[in-house]
Amino acid sequence: MKITANFDSGNIEVINATDPNNIQLAIRKDNMSDFYQWFHFRLNSPHAQVHKLHITNAGTSAYPDGWKDYQAVASYDRQNWFRVETEYDGNTLTITHYPEAESVYFAYFAPYSYERHMDLLHQAQNDYNCQLVELGETLDGRDMSMLVVGEPDDSKKKVWIIARQHPGETMAEWFVEGLLDRLLDEDDGVARSLLAKAVFYIVPNMNPDGSVRGHLRTNAVGVNLNREWQNPSMEQSPEVFLVRQKMLELGLDMLLDVHGDENLPYNFVAGAEGVPSYNAKMAQLEASFKQALLAVTPEFQTTYGYDRDEPGKANLTVCSNWVAEQFKTLAYTLEMPFKDNANLPDEAYGWSDVRSMKLGQDALTAILAVVDDLGQ
Amino acid sequence: MKITANFDSGNIEVINATDPNNIQLAIRKDNMSDFYQWFHFRLNSPHAQVHKLHITNAGTSAYPDGWKDYQAVASYDRQNWFRVETEYDGNTLTITHYPEAESVYFAYFAPYSYERHMDLLHQAQNDYNCQLVELGETLDGRDMSMLVVGEPDDSKKKVWIIARQHPGETMAEWFVEGLLDRLLDEDDGVARSLLAKAVFYIVPNMNPDGSVRGHLRTNAVGVNLNREWQNPSMEQSPEVFLVRQKMLELGLDMLLDVHGDENLPYNFVAGAEGVPSYNAKMAQLEASFKQALLAVTPEFQTTYGYDRDEPGKANLTVCSNWVAEQFKTLAYTLEMPFKDNANLPDEAYGWSDVRSMKLGQDALTAILAVVDDLGQ
Amino acid sequence: MKITANFDSGNIEVINATDPNNIQLAIRKDNMSDFYQWFHFRLNSPHAQVHKLHITNAGTSAYPDGWKDYQAVASYDRQNWFRVETEYDGNTLTITHYPEAESVYFAYFAPYSYERHMDLLHQAQNDYNCQLVELGETLDGRDMSMLVVGEPDDSKKKVWIIARQHPGETMAEWFVEGLLDRLLDEDDGVARSLLAKAVFYIVPNMNPDGSVRGHLRTNAVGVNLNREWQNPSMEQSPEVFLVRQKMLELGLDMLLDVHGDENLPYNFVAGAEGVPSYNAKMAQLEASFKQALLAVTPEFQTTYGYDRDEPGKANLTVCSNWVAEQFKTLAYTLEMPFKDNANLPDEAYGWSDVRSMKLGQDALTAILAVVDDLGQ
Amino acid sequence: MKITANFDSGNIEVINATDPNNIQLAIRKDNMSDFYQWFHFRLNSPHAQVHKLHITNAGTSAYPDGWKDYQAVASYDRQNWFRVETEYDGNTLTITHYPEAESVYFAYFAPYSYERHMDLLHQAQNDYNCQLVELGETLDGRDMSMLVVGEPDDSKKKVWIIARQHPGETMAEWFVEGLLDRLLDEDDGVARSLLAKAVFYIVPNMNPDGSVRGHLRTNAVGVNLNREWQNPSMEQSPEVFLVRQKMLELGLDMLLDVHGDENLPYNFVAGAEGVPSYNAKMAQLEASFKQALLAVTPEFQTTYGYDRDEPGKANLTVCSNWVAEQFKTLAYTLEMPFKDNANLPDEAYGWSDVRSMKLGQDALTAILAVVDDLGQ
Ligand SMILES: [Ca+2]
Ligand SMILES: [Ca+2]
Ligand SMILES: [Ca+2]
Ligand SMILES: [Ca+2]
Repeated sequence: MKITANFDSGNIEVINATDPNNIQLAIRKDNMSDFYQWFHFRLNSPHAQVHKLHITNAGTSAYPDGWKDYQAVASYDRQNWFRVETEYDGNTLTITHYPEAESVYFAYFAPYSYERHMDLLHQAQNDYNCQLVELGETLDGRDMSMLVVGEPDDSKKKVWIIARQHPGETMAEWFVEGLLDRLLDEDDGVARSLLAKAVFYIVPNMNPDGSVRGHLRTNAVGVNLNREWQNPSMEQSPEVFLVRQKMLELGLDMLLDVHGDENLPYNFVAGAEGVPSYNAKMAQLEASFKQALLAVTPEFQTTYGYDRDEPGKANLTVCSNWVAEQFKTLAYTLEMPFKDNANLPDEAYGWSDVRSMKLGQDALTAILAVVDDLGQ
Repeated sequence: MKITANFDSGNIEVINATDPNNIQLAIRKDNMSDFYQWFHFRLNSPHAQVHKLHITNAGTSAYPDGWKDYQAVASYDRQNWFRVETEYDGNTLTITHYPEAESVYFAYFAPYSYERHMDLLHQAQNDYNCQLVELGETLDGRDMSMLVVGEPDDSKKKVWIIARQHPGETMAEWFVEGLLDRLLDEDDGVARSLLAKAVFYIVPNMNPDGSVRGHLRTNAVGVNLNREWQNPSMEQSPEVFLVRQKMLELGLDMLLDVHGDENLPYNFVAGAEGVPSYNAKMAQLEASFKQALLAVTPEFQTTYGYDRDEPGKANLTVCSNWVAEQFKTLAYTLEMPFKDNANLPDEAYGWSDVRSMKLGQDALTAILAVVDDLGQ
Repeated sequence: MKITANFDSGNIEVINATDPNNIQLAIRKDNMSDFYQWFHFRLNSPHAQVHKLHITNAGTSAYPDGWKDYQAVASYDRQNWFRVETEYDGNTLTITHYPEAESVYFAYFAPYSYERHMDLLHQAQNDYNCQLVELGETLDGRDMSMLVVGEPDDSKKKVWIIARQHPGETMAEWFVEGLLDRLLDEDDGVARSLLAKAVFYIVPNMNPDGSVRGHLRTNAVGVNLNREWQNPSMEQSPEVFLVRQKMLELGLDMLLDVHGDENLPYNFVAGAEGVPSYNAKMAQLEASFKQALLAVTPEFQTTYGYDRDEPGKANLTVCSNWVAEQFKTLAYTLEMPFKDNANLPDEAYGWSDVRSMKLGQDALTAILAVVDDLGQ
Repeated sequence: MKITANFDSGNIEVINATDPNNIQLAIRKDNMSDFYQWFHFRLNSPHAQVHKLHITNAGTSAYPDGWKDYQAVASYDRQNWFRVETEYDGNTLTITHYPEAESVYFAYFAPYSYERHMDLLHQAQNDYNCQLVELGETLDGRDMSMLVVGEPDDSKKKVWIIARQHPGETMAEWFVEGLLDRLLDEDDGVARSLLAKAVFYIVPNMNPDGSVRGHLRTNAVGVNLNREWQNPSMEQSPEVFLVRQKMLELGLDMLLDVHGDENLPYNFVAGAEGVPSYNAKMAQLEASFKQALLAVTPEFQTTYGYDRDEPGKANLTVCSNWVAEQFKTLAYTLEMPFKDNANLPDEAYGWSDVRSMKLGQDALTAILAVVDDLGQ
């Protein structure tokens, strides 16, 4: 029996893997950080029996409530990720599974590898209507890449989509893949209407170093990028520094910052109601976007979400708040669950890579609903 | 140079095909009828030059206004149907094209063959959630086939989708193919939500005989099926007789009857405002459906459409009117253009098979918007 | 319960289809002929039980020995054709099957429709290295179509591939589809080597009328085309007349005439040893081709086959004999089984569409082995 | 302008990348070794012009003759790798290319990533006839993985296929992917015949550490694995130690060790004529295999290859020699070119990933030709 994690976004420590009935594991912390919750490893076992895998340090992870009602994902072929029986007792997360093949992968959510990320970028650039722009380098020396979809033109709105500031939230990049597929589909009426009115600036992965390292929440040096938007630096948070600089250079009429949420079993958005400049126009844009997304998919809802900020009390180091304040326009954090969508539960797959892609496609319809009103 | 139409849905008569600059053609009438407008033929030519194909009897076809601003479709590989230069002078429709391969097909719209129809039915029946039900036989001895999607249950609404009463309106079956693909997609939130609340009864092709024969508008004996819903007969209109009987047997909470329109370059719906029983509930359902479809796709619109019927003056021989009156519920005729959608024109493809499929997918979102309120 | 055959290549007569345990059927004769053996029909049944289908006139069909050890093919989705339990008592062929879906197709072998035939032709013509040439018309008014692969050039050998003179032998057109796919594959070394040395003249379907009509062996007027090569006529056998004329016009250095055999459970070739001109060169070419095909696939063998003709006693009305005599070169009839390859039996699928395609691909390797030596 | 190589199998050092007309680069040496020749990097450039990339240390690489008549490969989408203009002056290798997209990858040969490697292993294990067996760990902590195809049985021959001891020879893993695809194809006669007689032990990547690190020839600590077969150690060459141990444990009746050759523009095999035990039986097996591979594909040849070893003078540290001596049976090193196959040149693609896969498929036919005679 062998457990390995020496691959893209792998994360596990093996404490004891001798008894299939009692495999003891722990999640590694993000480098230079105390955050941990993302796991991704492979079990290779010759034993034809139930295996019990105990993640013994679950209780002190970044979001212990995230383990309640959570089911881990697994895959035999690295394409089809299904949910497996998982229990949490307040301290330990236990996965119980009878492997149907010699080797099985387990993960916190369907992984999105750096190879797939590069495939996404380069297949997109081949489209006549899409350009790949490099913004600079991360601390581990990876590329910060942006796709520009549509012909830039002063008359067009500038819509920014960024994803995966928190690298363990892989659903965010699946969301972008779905959104991008549709945006480049020349037969799609929503995409064609949007591209007549807007240019898209898309950063599919804000944190490639954390992604490859198997981090939950931070970059190569343990920095939470979504608290860096007021004062990013090339030393601590070049990922934010470079993208923020480009936003200031090119302008911005709308932002979606795409995330995953450990606790809530719902898709939802978090707005900028707490920023000092918040006004009726911004509130109206938020309401229109939400209304449109509700109309297009039952996967979205507005009942559950984060507590609303008090007026003027928003944390301006957070991307969507900083953007809203800076550009006085619509800036949403969009959250998808690690668990399932409790409004439309799917026992076999839970919330998934495929459903994330579909939500990305549907988000375009909601953007179309507000595009004419975007901007200051 | 050779022009042939001896295949599924083929329709042309060759008057003179000796000079590539002046090919003289005529469309055949539907059998036992004066209707004609559908054409579908193949040109095989050794001449590396522009070909001019004149359809000399266009001016007396069923819908001469349909030729205004119309561009014919063509294909080299029978999969990719593009628009070609077409002009109408009030009498003759002239297609001007320089073929890039030895053989090129021309048609009024992307054909949908009987083989593909049977593939659609039988690939669908393989889904655990779909059943194929045979209703009886047409006058040419073909099968009248219905797909049932979802587990029938008294608590569920009964949604009927029928298409292609007029066989030359092939976009109607493309629409159904798109709708069905989505309905059977287990990862799709709209489909899953709908199937929790409704069962779908889908007749992808109401007129297989006319389809294979290359008719525009009628069945094997020249009968316009969409004027038969009050008094269908097994002798003249078994297609309607059989489906109507099944509707009466199983019940109906909503109908979409899918069509193509020769004249208007728009997607639109025609309601039942003229039926005697029309009431506020029906009006509300119509409004909700339209509102939802507007929200989901810019391909739909409500500005252009048929003149509204006077109260009580609806033609009850028409399917959607008969259904609305019979079942006191939402019954829409949905129309797609043979031309293009003038709100979102695509010079290369016009309104197309692919766009029809996407509209079929989007229609499910609009059905979901009304499903809870359906029924008397 | 309903049995229908009103579609492309459908053939069955229903004698009695009221009792699932005792369905009585008969195969229709080819038009104006006594040949019959091909069947193709659909059973639609609401009964969740075993069905017994008796083909009552099997014992007097064209090849009664063909039913011994034969298993019929069936399909739910019209793509995957599997074998079903079949017995023959000397008079009646009985298919025993418990349908797993509402509707199931049965056939003598996996059908190859006219729509697929046209798709094959037109997708091939889109290749820069392939041309579609029309030769004329059948008696039912269908097109006699030929594909030319490779740039004609006096230095190149002329290789002719024709298939499906006997329309019920659908494996012949599957074989051609496989051969053609490989020939157009620009990464394939065998194809590239061949096209440097030869041009291919391919007639994928010699008998489209019989194919659509659901015939076993003859054209629209009951003529066995493979007995027409000495004196074809436009009145009785235009299919042969037109192709033979083109062979005489363009020349021919090698022929494969592709068939299916009802009796023998093997793949084999039949040569021209009985033609008057048979000589050592022709014998050597035959031997080389056989040797090469043996080397490339265990699906081929030379132990079983037709009895060899006495010297000079060949029937010159048969295509490959006429060709060998006329062009003094390699001309083979290639036969595939309706049953299975007994050397490599596959209980689930028997000899199949897919295996026929693979044999077509492998045949190119054997042609490459002889191409340099072809011709008089 | 930016040149990066911080990804799977990336290898380049940028000396100066400021002037598109004169980009100065160098290849990094394998870790703890002087070998270098593999390169793989991405150019991102805003300049719409020809770019000249000079690899300045080409002249002192492992195989300087490998640069003669060599054309580098490039890709915009990371799937389609085409050849680009490349010149070698004895010191510097110069790639001249006008990029058609913002970003273009260059490599020594089409890369085969570790992610694809894991996909290969895990999609294969899902086949009922294939098992994934883990053998142990590399020095960088990666898995040494083996696929077992077929049901082990004492009556069956044991065929071993290993690839990519030299990690830069990526064609070797493409070859294995092709071979494996065919071996798992249940419709393929060669595969079915083989699996009735043999079990396959396949190690798709003998050197995962070197592969990920972007090495040409060695593992993580600079060891050339193909000189380690007499005395491998877990400290220096665990990759060989583990596989060799398994060979000794399970037995071996045939070996193919798959490689790429820098110099010769041909596919060829190198046998075991120099091992002490070489005998007539081994010579006969070698001859039969070569004869069979010649018969199946013009991509293979026997005119060009390595000089033959003197009797008894073989280097027994080389895998195929050690295996031949140890197991007294057929053991071939199979070589494919980095350049092109000069017998069948393809200016656009040269020898490629796709052609390597096809050769892997064809190799099965040659194995079938000898399988009955394998073993001592
Ligand atoms: Ca581009
Ligand atoms: Ca079903
Ligand atoms: Ca062509
Ligand atoms: Ca397996």
